Amino acid sequence: MARADGRRPDQLRPVTITRNWLAHAEGSVLVEFGGTKVLCAATVEAGVPRWRKGSGLGWVTAEYAMLPRSTNTRSDRESVRGKIGGRTHEISRLIGRSLRACVDYKALGENSILLDCDVLQADGGTRTAAITGAYVALADAIAWMRAKKMCPGNPLVTSVAAVSVGVVGSVPMLDLCYVEDVKAETDMNVVMTGKGDFVEVQGTAEGVPFDRAALDGLLDLAAAGCAELTRLQTEALA
Amino acid sequence: MARADGRRPDQLRPVTITRNWLAHAEGSVLVEFGGTKVLCAATVEAGVPRWRKGSGLGWVTAEYAMLPRSTNTRSDRESVRGKIGGRTHEISRLIGRSLRACVDYKALGENSILLDCDVLQADGGTRTAAITGAYVALADAIAWMRAKKMCPGNPLVTSVAAVSVGVVGSVPMLDLCYVEDVKAETDMNVVMTGKGDFVEVQGTAEGVPFDRAALDGLLDLAAAGCAELTRLQTEALA
Amino acid sequence: MARADGRRPDQLRPVTITRNWLAHAEGSVLVEFGGTKVLCAATVEAGVPRWRKGSGLGWVTAEYAMLPRSTNTRSDRESVRGKIGGRTHEISRLIGRSLRACVDYKALGENSILLDCDVLQADGGTRTAAITGAYVALADAIAWMRAKKMCPGNPLVTSVAAVSVGVVGSVPMLDLCYVEDVKAETDMNVVMTGKGDFVEVQGTAEGVPFDRAALDGLLDLAAAGCAELTRLQTEALA
Amino acid sequence: MARADGRRPDQLRPVTITRNWLAHAEGSVLVEFGGTKVLCAATVEAGVPRWRKGSGLGWVTAEYAMLPRSTNTRSDRESVRGKIGGRTHEISRLIGRSLRACVDYKALGENSILLDCDVLQADGGTRTAAITGAYVALADAIAWMRAKKMCPGNPLVTSVAAVSVGVVGSVPMLDLCYVEDVKAETDMNVVMTGKGDFVEVQGTAEGVPFDRAALDGLLDLAAAGCAELTRLQTEALA
Amino acid sequence: MARADGRRPDQLRPVTITRNWLAHAEGSVLVEFGGTKVLCAATVEAGVPRWRKGSGLGWVTAEYAMLPRSTNTRSDRESVRGKIGGRTHEISRLIGRSLRACVDYKALGENSILLDCDVLQADGGTRTAAITGAYVALADAIAWMRAKKMCPGNPLVTSVAAVSVGVVGSVPMLDLCYVEDVKAETDMNVVMTGKGDFVEVQGTAEGVPFDRAALDGLLDLAAAGCAELTRLQTEALA
Amino acid sequence: MARADGRRPDQLRPVTITRNWLAHAEGSVLVEFGGTKVLCAATVEAGVPRWRKGSGLGWVTAEYAMLPRSTNTRSDRESVRGKIGGRTHEISRLIGRSLRACVDYKALGENSILLDCDVLQADGGTRTAAITGAYVALADAIAWMRAKKMCPGNPLVTSVAAVSVGVVGSVPMLDLCYVEDVKAETDMNVVMTGKGDFVEVQGTAEGVPFDRAALDGLLDLAAAGCAELTRLQTEALA
Repeated sequence: MARADGRRPDQLRPVTITRNWLAHAEGSVLVEFGGTKVLCAATVEAGVPRWRKGSGLGWVTAEYAMLPRSTNTRSDRESVRGKIGGRTHEISRLIGRSLRACVDYKALGENSILLDCDVLQADGGTRTAAITGAYVALADAIAWMRAKKMCPGNPLVTSVAAVSVGVVGSVPMLDLCYVEDVKAETDMNVVMTGKGDFVEVQGTAEGVPFDRAALDGLLDLAAAGCAELTRLQTEALA
Repeated sequence: MARADGRRPDQLRPVTITRNWLAHAEGSVLVEFGGTKVLCAATVEAGVPRWRKGSGLGWVTAEYAMLPRSTNTRSDRESVRGKIGGRTHEISRLIGRSLRACVDYKALGENSILLDCDVLQADGGTRTAAITGAYVALADAIAWMRAKKMCPGNPLVTSVAAVSVGVVGSVPMLDLCYVEDVKAETDMNVVMTGKGDFVEVQGTAEGVPFDRAALDGLLDLAAAGCAELTRLQTEALA
Repeated sequence: MARADGRRPDQLRPVTITRNWLAHAEGSVLVEFGGTKVLCAATVEAGVPRWRKGSGLGWVTAEYAMLPRSTNTRSDRESVRGKIGGRTHEISRLIGRSLRACVDYKALGENSILLDCDVLQADGGTRTAAITGAYVALADAIAWMRAKKMCPGNPLVTSVAAVSVGVVGSVPMLDLCYVEDVKAETDMNVVMTGKGDFVEVQGTAEGVPFDRAALDGLLDLAAAGCAELTRLQTEALA
Repeated sequence: MARADGRRPDQLRPVTITRNWLAHAEGSVLVEFGGTKVLCAATVEAGVPRWRKGSGLGWVTAEYAMLPRSTNTRSDRESVRGKIGGRTHEISRLIGRSLRACVDYKALGENSILLDCDVLQADGGTRTAAITGAYVALADAIAWMRAKKMCPGNPLVTSVAAVSVGVVGSVPMLDLCYVEDVKAETDMNVVMTGKGDFVEVQGTAEGVPFDRAALDGLLDLAAAGCAELTRLQTEALA
Repeated sequence: MARADGRRPDQLRPVTITRNWLAHAEGSVLVEFGGTKVLCAATVEAGVPRWRKGSGLGWVTAEYAMLPRSTNTRSDRESVRGKIGGRTHEISRLIGRSLRACVDYKALGENSILLDCDVLQADGGTRTAAITGAYVALADAIAWMRAKKMCPGNPLVTSVAAVSVGVVGSVPMLDLCYVEDVKAETDMNVVMTGKGDFVEVQGTAEGVPFDRAALDGLLDLAAAGCAELTRLQTEALA
Repeated sequence: MARADGRRPDQLRPVTITRNWLAHAEGSVLVEFGGTKVLCAATVEAGVPRWRKGSGLGWVTAEYAMLPRSTNTRSDRESVRGKIGGRTHEISRLIGRSLRACVDYKALGENSILLDCDVLQADGGTRTAAITGAYVALADAIAWMRAKKMCPGNPLVTSVAAVSVGVVGSVPMLDLCYVEDVKAETDMNVVMTGKGDFVEVQGTAEGVPFDRAALDGLLDLAAAGCAELTRLQTEALA
């Protein structure tokens, strides 16, 4: 079965990682997974949230948002509606947890890094593109901090990359674009370290519950996809 | 290694499912997983949300909340803060998706079922207890509807149950209580149908990324736990 | 004229007061006035609000809320609506004022007690049941504090109990259930101390203004009802 | 014991009722109880809220607010804080209930009257001044409607007036100004019809619970005060 | 072409400036431009906002609001809607900037003055009346501070006055009332110092873009109008 | 006096206008004024807001926002704060008014165009860049509509462009960058049509009030700048 854009089931879309896209941020990346474009900005702040003060430990968090016309049909701004929706909350939390897996809080010292991931254009996989790009922005921000001697040690202990996988028309596929995503029977987002361990596994049956074999097949695809993304991150940071 | 409450690693806490706890709701359950107590109420409403009108299809959704003093330290009410937090959003969405896996929208007709899951007392696993209890409340609400001949068919196509698993001190364990949950290196919530298929798999490395073997071990534990919970649901509904 | 549930006009519904319903709270009570069930939790916190710091005086406050399906027709969550309604505000303030009448702030020292009153099931008289139950939770919380030697003296100077009275079909009645409440021409909530003095008197003409004689008759009924509730509180605390 | 401003305990402050203070409103009154100045505007709208449509019945409601510098110390605007406080809600609801006692909904037809009561300057008794003034604005608005033949009948069935009473230094007093209000042991707001019946009785022990004799004394004072206010309303409307 | 109220195109409406309209504020003015009535209250607070602490400099800010029935058709309260609209924000910011032009922050010391401008009745030009009145309230508040020796110097360095001008039916006109304002092709608000310099110029083409000559004509009218208002302010403060 | 970036006082920064930057929007432009980058997206919607239904007239509106890290110091998201700030409101309104000057509502028919202007990177002049870019996105969206025969006529009656001018160190300058903007004594934003008429003139004395001669000098600079921007817009649309 051919995919919407002619890819093989186990093939990523073209991925580009453009560093230093913004002038002001301590690290910034425009990451593209095919038609999905996410602007990731890392902000370094001395100090940590109140509940962590005096611990000697740093903190990493993230905020995700979509521009209103990043999608085919415009969606209202969450600032205008006056509240953040459940999906936005959920993805912001996922990105934050994923990036925290890269960081040694003690080596970071009492500093914070905030990752803003703003979707400029959406074509499926915005959260996985965001995590993959945000890692590169984070690495740049940490390099900036180390150049300024802000950190007691090297806070970057591993890399993370993320990819979506899903079963579409009974075929397990890697890196779903939007038209595949809406047809998927099962949809899974997987976040892995550069060493190939899992940070997050989030699988959802969209319609048809899935068995252990299907799960195993998807995890295999995701592991290969994350390995490829790790390679691209390393290249971009070289 | 002994668990906090003396259980074996693969043992559930005592589970009780009390039906018809509330006088007004079309289905209601007080579900207890050890010290965790969640009140699940199913509300039947004729009609569906605006975006689904005229489709001939029904809808199922859920809202989760914790009473301020369900926890050891009181937390502020979200109504007082004026907004719903990210965790609440995330869990409400998880419960809704899980319960929708049980339902044939066409057989439900243009009716809605809303599941309110309010945590009266929390000791770990509130979201999995909520899903497990909400299924029973849903089944009762559907029986109520069928007795009233509100549905064109039988909307209940399967059951769902959910359990948490995690690695604590390198030991994979089933159904974590609060003190185990805060120490867990990896934490996973698994939602399964009565037939043993997956509806949701959400695994998170809390600190230490996990490998495929660890993931497999946790999925085995979860499958056994969900099977036992399915048995208890069936018993309760008998 | 017979009442909906066969009671005499001057008769309370069956009242139960179950202490220690919750594991975590310093005091907790499930209070039932017939079909009305309110979970009252007392939380002790060292310290007082900012405006009271350095005064040497303590503080007592309350929050009231209803679970969405405590009522016959489900009501939206105030957390979802993003604001607290007028009725909720009004009742929270009433409960707080009523409980403060029991407390010597100086003997309490700079500590706070917050009473959460959550209506699990509603059948009229939720605010009066809440006050009556919250007093017992407060007494338990103060006993807990005194056991911990947190208070400079004995802060509990009196007890409070509350009951609704109203004129239904020209007959003055005690402790209205929901179907009586909606038909009442006049509705009054009365909060009294264990010694028989008034803390709050809130009477409202629902439709027909009432004269002094009607007011006097209702106050007599309420005084008898509060005395009986005081007896039940004392028994529960024995 | 002399009062702050030399009045007798049973004496009202100078009361002025200025009709037609605003150019646009269908009825408007600037009411002054001593230093308390409240601007009451009645707005007539064809139609009723959604839940009342098709009933043939009208509706009356009210909103109360204080200008930020109406008080000695400036308070933040509720619009800036983004929510309405409990006190504001409570008083708005009280004013609405009180004014609804004057109106025959059937004779009003499916029309609404909204009473805006904005406190320009506060010196105690703002809610009772608001009710007393709003009645006159309501009467003017109803006269305007009847001149336009908007109503099927005469909707104005009685008048209402309101006054505060309280025990200050053991002396029962009428119409408390701010300095008396803060010292009061007991504080009561009473709303009565022009015929001398009660619409609302709200008594609160501020510190010292009060007995039946004290309550009776306060009700006597309030009845005399309301009668005098009714006379002033009648005069103003003549 | 005659104006709605018979004025000449270059004529102000009758302007009255009533000082000390409120008992509590450090400065207060009821300013009337024809049917437009704005209550301006100046509040003095020791201290400055957090971001200015330790600078030795003072701060001046403003809040503008309209009573719901100040207008011909009632508008909802911003407190009830839970947020401040764009127009309110814009005018509050304009008033604040305008008044800050009068003040030497150093001479003010670390004190704040907040100007509340509440429109009691609106008939066009509410923002310009607010600025003109607020200046007088500010001058009174500064005099009050100087009498209390709160300021290191004399913070009042100039006066400001404001007026609207516009082109209506091709005729440039001064101080538009509401019916003129809605018909205006071009609408401009001009804020000037007592010395005749510009503080703010805000011109908007309502429908027809305007050329330089039209702009020049409006600025001439505005300069004359502001000079006259400055004279009236001086008179009021004498 | 040399400018920060070596420009002459009457010189624009390098301006680029990249059309079709987004895949989904009916018109989209990435506009750059030096380091200022604004993404402008035009969304076409059939239908108009409720208050305009049945008029036969169209509507144009705009929303402006800044990405959190578009600036040197990160600012909080307005969605997270739960409300839109005054500056955002003010600029959104300015952009909307400016673009409406280009449009014949009758020729547009009952259709709406919404212009989203999101600042990706800020270096002064974001609102003027937004207006200048939004015009091009609007022109593209209208061309798209006309190709679809959605409009009864040609709605585009003129073009608009905008530029900032200001007095910095006594020198009038065109198109201020951020470091100039913060030092400016006077700051003016001017919106003009392609024919050279004014749509908006917003001048603010930041510190020093300005006289008529200064105003005239700034308007001359702005007129020349807008003419040049009009030329660049025409080129981009060719």
